[in-house]
Amino acid sequence: MAGYVSDAVIRRLPGYYRHLRELETAGVTQISSQELGKRMQLTPSQIRQDINCFGGFGRQGYGYNVTELKGHIGEILGLDRLHKVIILGAGSIGTAVARYPTFSREGFETIAMFDVAVDKVGGTVGDIPVLSMDKLESFLGENHVDIAVLALPAAYAQDTLDRLYAGGVRAVWNFAPTDLNHPNEMIVVNVHLSDSLQILSYRMAHSEDE
Amino acid sequence: MAGYVSDAVIRRLPGYYRHLRELETAGVTQISSQELGKRMQLTPSQIRQDINCFGGFGRQGYGYNVTELKGHIGEILGLDRLHKVIILGAGSIGTAVARYPTFSREGFETIAMFDVAVDKVGGTVGDIPVLSMDKLESFLGENHVDIAVLALPAAYAQDTLDRLYAGGVRAVWNFAPTDLNHPNEMIVVNVHLSDSLQILSYRMAHSEDE
Repeated sequence: MAGYVSDAVIRRLPGYYRHLRELETAGVTQISSQELGKRMQLTPSQIRQDINCFGGFGRQGYGYNVTELKGHIGEILGLDRLHKVIILGAGSIGTAVARYPTFSREGFETIAMFDVAVDKVGGTVGDIPVLSMDKLESFLGENHVDIAVLALPAAYAQDTLDRLYAGGVRAVWNFAPTDLNHPNEMIVVNVHLSDSLQILSYRMAHSEDE
Repeated sequence: MAGYVSDAVIRRLPGYYRHLRELETAGVTQISSQELGKRMQLTPSQIRQDINCFGGFGRQGYGYNVTELKGHIGEILGLDRLHKVIILGAGSIGTAVARYPTFSREGFETIAMFDVAVDKVGGTVGDIPVLSMDKLESFLGENHVDIAVLALPAAYAQDTLDRLYAGGVRAVWNFAPTDLNHPNEMIVVNVHLSDSLQILSYRMAHSEDE
């Protein structure tokens, strides 16, 4: 399969996947590097380099088969596997993640949510049961969990991450607005919403300067 | 003030701001480039270069005054201004953004939400009124809006962005899982949640290979 794939290429993979899914939905079966480049604001040669980089296929002059390329990139992204997910925190963010429509389509199945609020514990979000945080250890003992989503206040995030690690969870998607310490063998990807909004604010402030 | 600031430095600014806020909350008044670098997983010389880059201050050997540096970085990020925000879509994501506690603290004030669902229009999320999407143009005619948050399905995002542009909005924070066409003078920052989850999935798939 693919050889060394740079971080920059990895960061572009979800964009490829998203555009190819949109093209597939629109009924497009074949696309050239020129057309794909135009959609993605990359040069055709960049597109060809990227696709070569992850095990190039498609024949020069014929373009790429949309469904095949999407399937191939999906495999590289690990989207051909089923991921069992739990969500820590049944507030607004946890609920938004639980209801996000594309996740289940891409193989991410939320099997439980956890919260401390007595009015939430015992209820459901959609079909997903909300359990007490006290039950986290016993749940992890009985269920295989691939990914834990941290959707709780920053003050509780590190302690919860440590409990998840002790319970065998090795991948965390962190929405708590703080940076967490974790062992090397644990993968943590942060979604710092404030950072993104601050970048918008920065660009607004400095577009006025220009 | 600061001279040319590279994209890489700009992307690190919210991280500086977040760490300095945490330090301030913890009662730390002074920090060295060594200590700040350790927290942020950057070298002390990287920290000094970054801080010089945005109009360096602090005296060699004395470290940086936490509150001053935070204030200075906040200004660069435009957080000393009040931003009037509207949210398009009062579903899970829109509600999560409306309730996100740090935004109002950082000067982002949500003045209205918009939705098409009859059971939502006329209600409120917290103190924020939910208005009908039909009222968007008249609202924009009567109110100054700095930032519009797109928290609606991908299929409606482009049309809504065009309406916002026509109504004078020049900054969009986009949560719809699609890339949008927009005039150069409009600033669009995307939060593609699927992309972030797919990067996590990629890293999980490939850590097993190693």
